[in-house]
Amino acid sequence: MSIRSKYPFSRRVSGTAPSAVREILKVAEQPDVLSFAGGLPAPELFPAEAIAEAAASVLATEPSSALQYGVTEGHAPLREWVAARFTGQGVPTRADDILITHGSQQGIDLVARAFLDRGDRVVVEDPTYLAALQAFSLCEAVPVPVASDDDGLCTEALGELDGAEAPSLVYVVPTFQNPTGRSLAASRRRDLVRWATARGVPILADEPYADIRFAGEPLPPLVAFDQDLVIQLGTFSKTLAPGLRIGWIRASEPIRKRLTTLKQASDLHTSTLNQRIIARLLETFDFEGHLGRVRETYRARHGAMHLALQEWMPKGTAWTRPEGGLFVWLSLPPGVHDLDVFQAAIARKVAVVPGSPFFVTPQPRGHLRLSFGNRSEAHIASGLRTLGEVVRDLAAKAERTNVTKSHASAQSLAP
Amino acid sequence: MSIRSKYPFSRRVSGTAPSAVREILKVAEQPDVLSFAGGLPAPELFPAEAIAEAAASVLATEPSSALQYGVTEGHAPLREWVAARFTGQGVPTRADDILITHGSQQGIDLVARAFLDRGDRVVVEDPTYLAALQAFSLCEAVPVPVASDDDGLCTEALGELDGAEAPSLVYVVPTFQNPTGRSLAASRRRDLVRWATARGVPILADEPYADIRFAGEPLPPLVAFDQDLVIQLGTFSKTLAPGLRIGWIRASEPIRKRLTTLKQASDLHTSTLNQRIIARLLETFDFEGHLGRVRETYRARHGAMHLALQEWMPKGTAWTRPEGGLFVWLSLPPGVHDLDVFQAAIARKVAVVPGSPFFVTPQPRGHLRLSFGNRSEAHIASGLRTLGEVVRDLAAKAERTNVTKSHASAQSLAP
Repeated sequence: MSIRSKYPFSRRVSGTAPSAVREILKVAEQPDVLSFAGGLPAPELFPAEAIAEAAASVLATEPSSALQYGVTEGHAPLREWVAARFTGQGVPTRADDILITHGSQQGIDLVARAFLDRGDRVVVEDPTYLAALQAFSLCEAVPVPVASDDDGLCTEALGELDGAEAPSLVYVVPTFQNPTGRSLAASRRRDLVRWATARGVPILADEPYADIRFAGEPLPPLVAFDQDLVIQLGTFSKTLAPGLRIGWIRASEPIRKRLTTLKQASDLHTSTLNQRIIARLLETFDFEGHLGRVRETYRARHGAMHLALQEWMPKGTAWTRPEGGLFVWLSLPPGVHDLDVFQAAIARKVAVVPGSPFFVTPQPRGHLRLSFGNRSEAHIASGLRTLGEVVRDLAAKAERTNVTKSHASAQSLAP
Repeated sequence: MSIRSKYPFSRRVSGTAPSAVREILKVAEQPDVLSFAGGLPAPELFPAEAIAEAAASVLATEPSSALQYGVTEGHAPLREWVAARFTGQGVPTRADDILITHGSQQGIDLVARAFLDRGDRVVVEDPTYLAALQAFSLCEAVPVPVASDDDGLCTEALGELDGAEAPSLVYVVPTFQNPTGRSLAASRRRDLVRWATARGVPILADEPYADIRFAGEPLPPLVAFDQDLVIQLGTFSKTLAPGLRIGWIRASEPIRKRLTTLKQASDLHTSTLNQRIIARLLETFDFEGHLGRVRETYRARHGAMHLALQEWMPKGTAWTRPEGGLFVWLSLPPGVHDLDVFQAAIARKVAVVPGSPFFVTPQPRGHLRLSFGNRSEAHIASGLRTLGEVVRDLAAKAERTNVTKSHASAQSLAP
């Protein structure tokens, strides 16, 4: 037996770097920084008192069950609530169709492991959610980027994939996508599901934001078009609170069985206490009324951000106008790079996330993700003013450089 | 592009069946069954009131942080407490050396994924913890069984592995092992670490039970012998309550960094609420005093089980005498099979776990795992009496069959 080199890491972790954005967020979340970087929900919206009451009630009335091991599938009354909500949205669902997860990130990880072997292809929007790309990378899968526009993933482009090996999975954030805030149009939802199911390709529909719609009309969930191959994720992280780490997977039986086995080997089951706290809360809490307040807060904050962008951004800047969620996607003026904006803004104690890490294909570094969820309207107004000044300075500089370059290039072409 | 067969599952889940024991436990945990099957801690030991107070305090004083997203590494004060406990046990440890996990099962899963590629070898005790085998199977790794005796894994047998390809990991439950209740002797701990480190092989030391010692002297943790390649897991599941799902990994920096990246892609971070509840609890709770009560309870229950086994088991039965933990490992009389005992006992509303699923190598089906943690001494006395009758009946039957067989075989050999 030969002696191994130090730390015989697996291939999968050798190829996965820590998230670049994670390092950026560490800087961004310093207390003196006005941050539009993280995708954090507003803590003032957490129903802390109702959660405290539910926790006290659970620990007083059922401590032995709430603190004991539980079944991998999850707490039955919570699964029933989730199922009833799907049913109410037009997708008939039984409690048995639901697997409770430790946040919806775990849903992504489990589904990735259920379908992706080394070298397998996974279709993703470009740009897409970074931690999903990380989960796919840990399966040594190959992301296949498909461009997106204001109506989400360009389903017309899917036909181009038909020449190559079939993908093993499609991953999409259909509603108020991270990082763009865009939603997949209803007709494209139908087309995407039709394309994938005809080819036997499962679709992972990640819907952490769909409940936070503050404008426009609801869109049909992808699972409404096919309940066999569409796997739908949901979470309480954006509606109640992320610190509880309670999400769910809705999947057909053959898929859900595999996911349950995976979940069991991953962490046995999700915290019984937290599942029961939420189940108890939902018995009496006005969830829809609460959602109304959440939506109203984010509507106002998004409005403030849109106004500030109109007021302070230089010509040549464009941005999305999401109807919900937490994110605006900003396209910088020509020649202005995301990392330069990040550096200049953080020097003035304002934080944003550069857009380039969200892309699979190398792209011009001309985008920023702005989160409007976690700052007051006043902070948004002042922070975006600073950001506008930073972008304007860099745009002016880029223009000067460009003029000089054109000049230099004209000179060098001179005989 | 060819059309895929339905459900293009990955190879890793196609090869992994749901745990056989899990199905058995579903039967065993019916309310009218007297179960010695599950490895459940005693719920009457959960410090429910202290947990309720800590939860109320956290949600009243720091709701915004306790319900918000947190860092992947875990809540700093909790990491500090865990580190201080290691230091107090003679292994100098900083908070930075600790990664908080969603139970120690997640620690097994993360370490497996960090080191095991398809076909890689992982050394395990035989028999060993079933859900660890499942996690290794999901990495498509090959378990390499090493026999164990009353002093745990037979380190003398490790030399036999030196001819083959080096393993990528050693997995061991050093103290009060699941399923046998045995502990790895101090000299073997040293020998195991010496063997592995000389070959650059990391060791995963899974220690969920080490804190529940009710007899004998503490043994040095494996990490005391090497702090670079020994990865040590711990959990509050057996000391406070499993429903909180809070465990930890102690690992050297290069390893911990990979595990943190894996954890981030797996579930972002462990529930901030639960981490803060435990951290708050530990500020004022007499943890060592509580551990004393836990140990005393399990000492008494183990004593009751040992007495009942002496009273009711037929000749030819043997069992381990653990100095802590939750499990006794019973060797059945010749010709008595674990599944037959399970069937006959469950018909009489007593549940045990057959031993065969815990083995990697095919073994005679002559073992049972008995958990003494979750039943009163009176229940243990009455349940073990029933089990003794079941085993005695089957042993008598096996002896009759054996006599008949010898007779038949003698006849058929007659000319």
